[in-house]
Amino acid sequence: MREAYYDELEGVFADLSEMTRLVEVAVQTATQALLTGDAEIAERVISADAEIDSRREKVENDAFNLLSLQQPVAGDLRQIVAALRIVSELERMGDLAEHVAKVARLRVPGLAVPEDLRPTITRMSTIALEMVGRLRVVISDRDVDAAARLAEIDEEMDKLRRLNFTELLRKDWTHGVEAAVDVALLGRYYERIADHAVGIANRVVFVVTGDFPVAG
Amino acid sequence: MREAYYDELEGVFADLSEMTRLVEVAVQTATQALLTGDAEIAERVISADAEIDSRREKVENDAFNLLSLQQPVAGDLRQIVAALRIVSELERMGDLAEHVAKVARLRVPGLAVPEDLRPTITRMSTIALEMVGRLRVVISDRDVDAAARLAEIDEEMDKLRRLNFTELLRKDWTHGVEAAVDVALLGRYYERIADHAVGIANRVVFVVTGDFPVAG
Repeated sequence: MREAYYDELEGVFADLSEMTRLVEVAVQTATQALLTGDAEIAERVISADAEIDSRREKVENDAFNLLSLQQPVAGDLRQIVAALRIVSELERMGDLAEHVAKVARLRVPGLAVPEDLRPTITRMSTIALEMVGRLRVVISDRDVDAAARLAEIDEEMDKLRRLNFTELLRKDWTHGVEAAVDVALLGRYYERIADHAVGIANRVVFVVTGDFPVAG
Repeated sequence: MREAYYDELEGVFADLSEMTRLVEVAVQTATQALLTGDAEIAERVISADAEIDSRREKVENDAFNLLSLQQPVAGDLRQIVAALRIVSELERMGDLAEHVAKVARLRVPGLAVPEDLRPTITRMSTIALEMVGRLRVVISDRDVDAAARLAEIDEEMDKLRRLNFTELLRKDWTHGVEAAVDVALLGRYYERIADHAVGIANRVVFVVTGDFPVAG
């Protein structure tokens, strides 16, 4: 019975890890749609979000059943409670990738991001993607060192967000209000994806060490 | 022992209700700062957010202890799991009110919202505030009818969000890129506050009826 229980607990974290992989694909594909202005690619992200949502339901149900049937305490209980929090943040990350895809779709056959702002948005997407990729390792291996590294990478995201605003608000902006609003919101979506990655990583650190590094 | 347990469970929901009241104050005060351009009022929201965060910690700890010491099942377990989800959404609503206050602070002594966009932003803030006020009743009374009403009110928020974009993107926009970006982000913050209110209300419906009305 105990062994079956640990298998189930591992199963929940395996599902979280798999969800993180789906979020990674969503962020990557949404960025591709954004930078190419390809409506079909954007649609792919939007319809794939249902899969992330249904995984969320599965994890919530499995976690609930574990709590109900096994009545775990201490560290095991902490892991399941963390899983419930992590799953809702992962779902949210998927929604944010979907938002990126929707901005891309709205501007087809044009591009939402003007040429001279592409480097910053591309860099933000690369950082977001790297963070989600590392998050998968944090979750699957409950790797505390990898979690700490995420907070460091997030500092670059914060810098890029400031640069993004500086670029938008310079006096010689010629791309009009629509492009400015799109890029401001896109910057926000990538920043939030990164924030959630750090928040989840902090939860994992808490599960492993009992210590909460930064407010998640 | 059972009675003490129900008192503790009620205590968790009383804390959630009190947190909702703090969020309500935050949204109201942030909007006041936004519409008056008063830096002191903005600061008040920003520093008050720590109180919401510390309440979140208390609810999480209390819920954890209830799970650990009382090993609830069925409906009681469902309530505690819902409380964990609700508390993180409430914390997030507080953060969003803080974001509104920060936009206000950034433009002092000016106003972030141009005169002719004030009606829509004011209406969005009024709707958000009404939703948070009703959410408090949903949580404290676990009132399913009041929860259903929230989803209806949210439809007006969605309409206002579209109107907000239409206003921003009209051809004769004369307020510059900075104001457009501010108003686009402010619209997003109020919309998200409303989304969280609906998400929490749906969780409460689930707790009471076992049925989930809309993806939260």
